[in-house]
Amino acid sequence: MTRTQLTDLDEVQLLDTTLRDGEQMPGVSLSPREKVDVARELDAAGVHLIEAGSACTSAGEREAIRKVADEGLDATVTSFARGVKRDVDHALDCGVDGVNLVVPASDKHVETKVGSTRDEVVETTVELVEYAKEHGLWVEVLGEDGSRADLDYLDRLLGAGLDAGADRICYCDTVGAADPERTAEVVSRLADRGPTSLHTHDDLGFGLANVHAGLKAGADTVHGTVLGVGERAGNVALEEVAIALGESYGVDTVELARLYRLCRTVSEATGVALPPNKAVCGANAFAHESGIHTDGTLKDGTMYEPYPPETVGRERRLVLGKHAGRAGVKAALAEHDVAVTDDELREVVDRVKELGERGKRVTDADLLAVADDVRGRERERHVELVDLSATSGGNLPTASVRLRVGDDERVAAGTGSGPVDAGLEAVRTALAGDGSDDAEGAGDGVAFDLDSYHVDAITGGTDAVVTVEVDLSRGDRSVSVSASDADITRASVVGMVDGLDRLLAAEADAADAEPGAVADD
Amino acid sequence: MTRTQLTDLDEVQLLDTTLRDGEQMPGVSLSPREKVDVARELDAAGVHLIEAGSACTSAGEREAIRKVADEGLDATVTSFARGVKRDVDHALDCGVDGVNLVVPASDKHVETKVGSTRDEVVETTVELVEYAKEHGLWVEVLGEDGSRADLDYLDRLLGAGLDAGADRICYCDTVGAADPERTAEVVSRLADRGPTSLHTHDDLGFGLANVHAGLKAGADTVHGTVLGVGERAGNVALEEVAIALGESYGVDTVELARLYRLCRTVSEATGVALPPNKAVCGANAFAHESGIHTDGTLKDGTMYEPYPPETVGRERRLVLGKHAGRAGVKAALAEHDVAVTDDELREVVDRVKELGERGKRVTDADLLAVADDVRGRERERHVELVDLSATSGGNLPTASVRLRVGDDERVAAGTGSGPVDAGLEAVRTALAGDGSDDAEGAGDGVAFDLDSYHVDAITGGTDAVVTVEVDLSRGDRSVSVSASDADITRASVVGMVDGLDRLLAAEADAADAEPGAVADD
Repeated sequence: MTRTQLTDLDEVQLLDTTLRDGEQMPGVSLSPREKVDVARELDAAGVHLIEAGSACTSAGEREAIRKVADEGLDATVTSFARGVKRDVDHALDCGVDGVNLVVPASDKHVETKVGSTRDEVVETTVELVEYAKEHGLWVEVLGEDGSRADLDYLDRLLGAGLDAGADRICYCDTVGAADPERTAEVVSRLADRGPTSLHTHDDLGFGLANVHAGLKAGADTVHGTVLGVGERAGNVALEEVAIALGESYGVDTVELARLYRLCRTVSEATGVALPPNKAVCGANAFAHESGIHTDGTLKDGTMYEPYPPETVGRERRLVLGKHAGRAGVKAALAEHDVAVTDDELREVVDRVKELGERGKRVTDADLLAVADDVRGRERERHVELVDLSATSGGNLPTASVRLRVGDDERVAAGTGSGPVDAGLEAVRTALAGDGSDDAEGAGDGVAFDLDSYHVDAITGGTDAVVTVEVDLSRGDRSVSVSASDADITRASVVGMVDGLDRLLAAEADAADAEPGAVADD
Repeated sequence: MTRTQLTDLDEVQLLDTTLRDGEQMPGVSLSPREKVDVARELDAAGVHLIEAGSACTSAGEREAIRKVADEGLDATVTSFARGVKRDVDHALDCGVDGVNLVVPASDKHVETKVGSTRDEVVETTVELVEYAKEHGLWVEVLGEDGSRADLDYLDRLLGAGLDAGADRICYCDTVGAADPERTAEVVSRLADRGPTSLHTHDDLGFGLANVHAGLKAGADTVHGTVLGVGERAGNVALEEVAIALGESYGVDTVELARLYRLCRTVSEATGVALPPNKAVCGANAFAHESGIHTDGTLKDGTMYEPYPPETVGRERRLVLGKHAGRAGVKAALAEHDVAVTDDELREVVDRVKELGERGKRVTDADLLAVADDVRGRERERHVELVDLSATSGGNLPTASVRLRVGDDERVAAGTGSGPVDAGLEAVRTALAGDGSDDAEGAGDGVAFDLDSYHVDAITGGTDAVVTVEVDLSRGDRSVSVSASDADITRASVVGMVDGLDRLLAAEADAADAEPGAVADD
């Protein structure tokens, strides 16, 4: 592909408004600590401007903005301010470097919302810009609902802001109503006045298309939020702006290799899950399941990827399911040191596809169970759950388990913050050893790490079947397992025990294969 | 805004590939029943073409495609087929109307993946198109990885397909690597040859921007998936294509008012959650929390919305939280028949914002608790949880509760599919009545409906704090409550009891306010 030029610029500045517009997303609220954590990540990635919040909101919000401003970041730290002096004073009070001064631009906002007139708004804007500049602030003037405003008036309003000393102006598609043609029309006019930013929303799905059109029309800075969090359908996603400009046009923005990390930080802070099918950050963004895609990817990593996952700090992942093919299954078995004949492989592929067709995610444990069965191997269980009981609801959730470990039976109880946590503790205790004074008794302890515990959102009702996914590891070996049950306690503990059993089986196989290794242990 | 013309067409056809490309998303597998359900919804919305699956995948997949083909839908039903005769035969075997014949176009795919040559691929394509047409199929020829192919070769390949009798050709940005300029370049060339479709992916976030560019360059049909499910970052979202074309350019596609319903159907079938900040379908797409936005929206519904929610079959929602303002809080209180003075309102707003700042979603129950407190009302609990115990993990999950109901104490036990379900049953039993033979005893039964029970995905580990959200109702009254605890059993039962308490309090208030109504009951 030939690379076209989108803009004259080698670098486009990004203003991140995750901590302001993003935080206005219903249900999202960040503590001062969380705001600082996100701001640090943004700064480390090289985001140029960070809008840390809206100082007029509350004393708590001002405390948070102040903390971000006090971090000594490389980025310019700003606060949102409405077109009233009080808001600029609140911002000054927080010690920020600048303000994003938002004034009404469309008649709907000027007249119906604020109850003012066009001329009054221009006058106030000029006064506030002068006031903010006198107090040493960097000032960006944003015309709210600018995409739906009368263009001549918007031009006059923002032009007056620049004349009064503002550092830049911003095209706001506040409600995500504009198409690329409208964006180009408005931005080309504003960019003739002075440095112009783009603030786009995704209500029509045109968030990034409008950034594209706006940069082409002469803008030099883009507002966005990580994951596209924000009011309604959200803002344009900062990570998509960065990867699209970098990959398609060779335009620098931020450090791309930190994008995934940034997305995870924001997901954890806001509680907004990473959609599996989201560019850059989704769990599947670099995962391949179908036989055709997996086969192609094994031949050449770039076959089904627009750019290598490492670009954004990630790794490629091959997944098994209904669309699995021979190449992918063979590669997955090899990862677990399982060799099969061609006939066996065909049978394993068929069985994996069958599992997938029943709507099941095919985990490592599922694949290995199928392979054992196909190879006619008697599955010798190393650990098995015989009995489980948990009490919860009161002050001290408690669980007890009876496990068969080899030829032994072990019983133990544990407490925890809930029934699942208590169950995990009981399993750990049961496996820690038999508690005998026998010096050799200590050797029978089986420790493991629970690397991740995940339950999908439950929505069907209190009797919905819950699917629990766990990743367990011992030393260098790890395994993924899932278990489903209407009883979340049972699903969780069964998953853990099954995973552990798989790990022990793999260890035993490895020891059988290399008898010398056992003696060296 | 002036409306620009994007295409000469009044209508653009949509091909939905949710059941094929969408289903290739790792972890997604649809049963034949689910495929039929989704296909019916797509057809009802007026989707023109439905790619029902890939007939070569398995016998189960063919059964599903056959069922969709047998539904007698208005839409043209097709199957994916690779460039091999066997795949076309499989498709014929399913009784579909047509095939989406996918042949390699980029050298990477021609040489590395398939191990063929450009000329061989052209030859095979011509043979297969002729074969498919002889068997009465509608044929679309797709050049896989076409955006990364040599344009002269792609033009020759797809041109040969048209000359052999294909009904249309398709520009495939298989790996989502193209930008709008490349899309325009390729599509304008192809559209000169004949009817051209667009198949775009979202790996760079350019899925919709490329549809925009491709239609402008002369394409007349768009492939998409509902919610943008699909390989990696997914396909362009069908609902975004439909709303963007309809709202921005007045171009017809499908019945917009059925889009939300369609999204929910696909979300339920695939298990892919609706991201809260997703255009058209996200929970927040028409929700407003911040004071500025809520105030504006109450004055004029279109203030912060690009188009009315009813357009896509939804309703507007006002939400309370950290950014709440006076207008929004007042409106929410009025919905619960609570009148407050101006001073009280100010205090309630401050307290709601405080709750929001602590990261809490402010539910109905939270708002009412704050209002009671501010108005100096003694909160008289109608139902209170005194004791709770649940056992789980074994064959018969069981729970017992001790509730204070007015001046009574009631104890009951229940069983269920898990600890939470058993807890719900125990609460229901405790409230059903005191079990005495006294004829009036029956009157003290308190029935309620659990309208929804939701737990967000749990990821932090087995000791993560779980937030449970429940909606309860009695008659016309409903209430939303949330409760958090590391013990999922406790959080769930506390939420239910608190919600029920609120419903009973509202009933008592209403009875006090209208004493006559009680006598009429």
